[in-house]
Amino acid sequence: MEREDAAIVDARERLFVTYELTGPQDPYQRARQIAVEQTAELPEDCFGPEIDRRVVGRLEDLERLDRHRHRVVVSYPAALAAGELPQLLIVLFGNLSMYGDLAIVDVGWPEELLDDLPGPSLGIEGLRELLPATRDRPLLCSALKPVGLDVEALAELCLRLARGGADLIKDDQGLGNQAWAPFEARVVACADAIERARRETGTHSLYLPHLTGPVETLESRLRLLRELGIAGALVAPFVTGLDAMRSLARESGLLLLAHPAASGWYWHGNPRIAPEVILGDVLRLAGADGVIFPNPGARFPFNERDASTLVDRLRRPGGALRRAFPVPGGGLQLDTLDFWRERYGPDTIFLVGGSLFQQGEVEDATRRLMERLGREK
Amino acid sequence: MEREDAAIVDARERLFVTYELTGPQDPYQRARQIAVEQTAELPEDCFGPEIDRRVVGRLEDLERLDRHRHRVVVSYPAALAAGELPQLLIVLFGNLSMYGDLAIVDVGWPEELLDDLPGPSLGIEGLRELLPATRDRPLLCSALKPVGLDVEALAELCLRLARGGADLIKDDQGLGNQAWAPFEARVVACADAIERARRETGTHSLYLPHLTGPVETLESRLRLLRELGIAGALVAPFVTGLDAMRSLARESGLLLLAHPAASGWYWHGNPRIAPEVILGDVLRLAGADGVIFPNPGARFPFNERDASTLVDRLRRPGGALRRAFPVPGGGLQLDTLDFWRERYGPDTIFLVGGSLFQQGEVEDATRRLMERLGREK
Repeated sequence: MEREDAAIVDARERLFVTYELTGPQDPYQRARQIAVEQTAELPEDCFGPEIDRRVVGRLEDLERLDRHRHRVVVSYPAALAAGELPQLLIVLFGNLSMYGDLAIVDVGWPEELLDDLPGPSLGIEGLRELLPATRDRPLLCSALKPVGLDVEALAELCLRLARGGADLIKDDQGLGNQAWAPFEARVVACADAIERARRETGTHSLYLPHLTGPVETLESRLRLLRELGIAGALVAPFVTGLDAMRSLARESGLLLLAHPAASGWYWHGNPRIAPEVILGDVLRLAGADGVIFPNPGARFPFNERDASTLVDRLRRPGGALRRAFPVPGGGLQLDTLDFWRERYGPDTIFLVGGSLFQQGEVEDATRRLMERLGREK
Repeated sequence: MEREDAAIVDARERLFVTYELTGPQDPYQRARQIAVEQTAELPEDCFGPEIDRRVVGRLEDLERLDRHRHRVVVSYPAALAAGELPQLLIVLFGNLSMYGDLAIVDVGWPEELLDDLPGPSLGIEGLRELLPATRDRPLLCSALKPVGLDVEALAELCLRLARGGADLIKDDQGLGNQAWAPFEARVVACADAIERARRETGTHSLYLPHLTGPVETLESRLRLLRELGIAGALVAPFVTGLDAMRSLARESGLLLLAHPAASGWYWHGNPRIAPEVILGDVLRLAGADGVIFPNPGARFPFNERDASTLVDRLRRPGGALRRAFPVPGGGLQLDTLDFWRERYGPDTIFLVGGSLFQQGEVEDATRRLMERLGREK
């Protein structure tokens, strides 16, 4: 049970999944039920010892937490996923998600799988190379919002944020291809604003348009990003699909900031997959260079333990797997920034939207905030 | 509040979302919080009346269920989605999924959106045309499993099911591209088995290979299916992405059976989106011709009310939107089949794997089951 603090790579060729089981049912019986459900998915009398040996999960550990709570580790052959992320997810939580009373609290990832899932194309070090002036300070990301603004207003906001020196400026995940601000016109105008700010003030911001499908548009939207020299994008992987993000990371080489929209179903309530697993390890394996999460004490219920563990997971050593930026957001208040900066350290991107806009004129407010974060004057 | 029983099409240009809110907080305040969270996503002092009018959700109805439970209807402009499924999902449940204590219990879909989301490419009527001999009886789908069998064993099982007359034979969702049964070899061998059974016994089964990414493989896998004359596929949309399924339905014209793997996060626990919305309306809008769900009384906890409502939703009138087959499965026991057949009626696909294999020799067992379902002898 030392995996919790170990490196992300588990040297073995098996996937180790730790479950927390609640209820009066015999935990050995339940562990076997899980091990079969996620593999053979047949009554015990419908398969023989060879299938059992080849694919069915194996009970590796069982720990009694209290009378009706057990922690159980079941391992699965990595060969079940055969290097494909969708099959990995099916083994990890496909049918289990339908059981209702179960938590996946940890996963040890086999090296064999990691070879096929290269993860972030840039990671922390790659983004630092794109923005060398950030050196070892935290970064600021702000957002173009609200949805409903037209192209001109969004580009004007982008210009002000860029002139103020925001490191990253992302589209709101609400921005799609709305009639009043179509994708292409918006992206062209915002890229232009970034360039204009660079010429006028010497600031170097990265603009991240929102690139969450539809599938048929991805090729032409990617082409546009390339033509404009845009280096990154915002993706909502729980909307567009984790495998779509993985593929985008691999094919495009863009810096990908993962938005947690539609992820709450996974990590809230029961059944549940621990946020550090689904927003941490899984998003990192699926190619996120940075992972936005709801910071504790802001708009969404997310506790400090979950936040700290998630942050550690994104940045822990992973062999060839690049480290990813934690991106606390979700209504982060500026008056708590020093606390969180101390807590999370420099390899952090603070996502600040509303509470920045509340400080008055955006360019000045951004400049003041960047100075607080330690930007060279 | 008549939407519950009305047709799927809501004539207006707005999306009507019904929430159930639990807790002591003022329901008007919470409704406003939701309406802003899913749209402007900014503090109230950061946007003006024009944004409010253009994009922010509107409270349409509020009903007190008991002291601390309210049913609230908020409407959103369909223009926010701009015809794109990913943006629709972001408006519908992106950030809200992270709130924790909330249920989405119903949605009224605007006609404007339905024009852009054509839904199933075949639907109930289209599948009946592919299998005219099924006329007005329920269909049988069985599964090639367990994962771990090699190509030869899977093809042999496919042959027996096809000779027995199973209408549909799907890959298990666990079948990917495993070394012992690679995708291409498996699909070629199973398609061949189907053809052999047709020649030998005159049975006409449809084979549905599992087509859940990875993204990069889809084109070549689709090409293989086309070359082999395969008319349908199994997809796990909550793994591969709902938009990926929509695109597949549109581009390929394949009959798509949607597997509920990884959907339990949505409809179990709290937060929650009602199964008839997420497995019903949403999967139908996203192009599923049939939706597999865990039948009550089998392996997964799924109640009869949810099952009946889901079945109705898949088959209710929808204007140009084709009706989809409900596919009860998840460990359906053969001794309950008559009950469910009576309950669900003829436009149903019964998914029977394990309990069929438990009846002894598969070909004979399949033949007997098909006779029970009313196949012409």
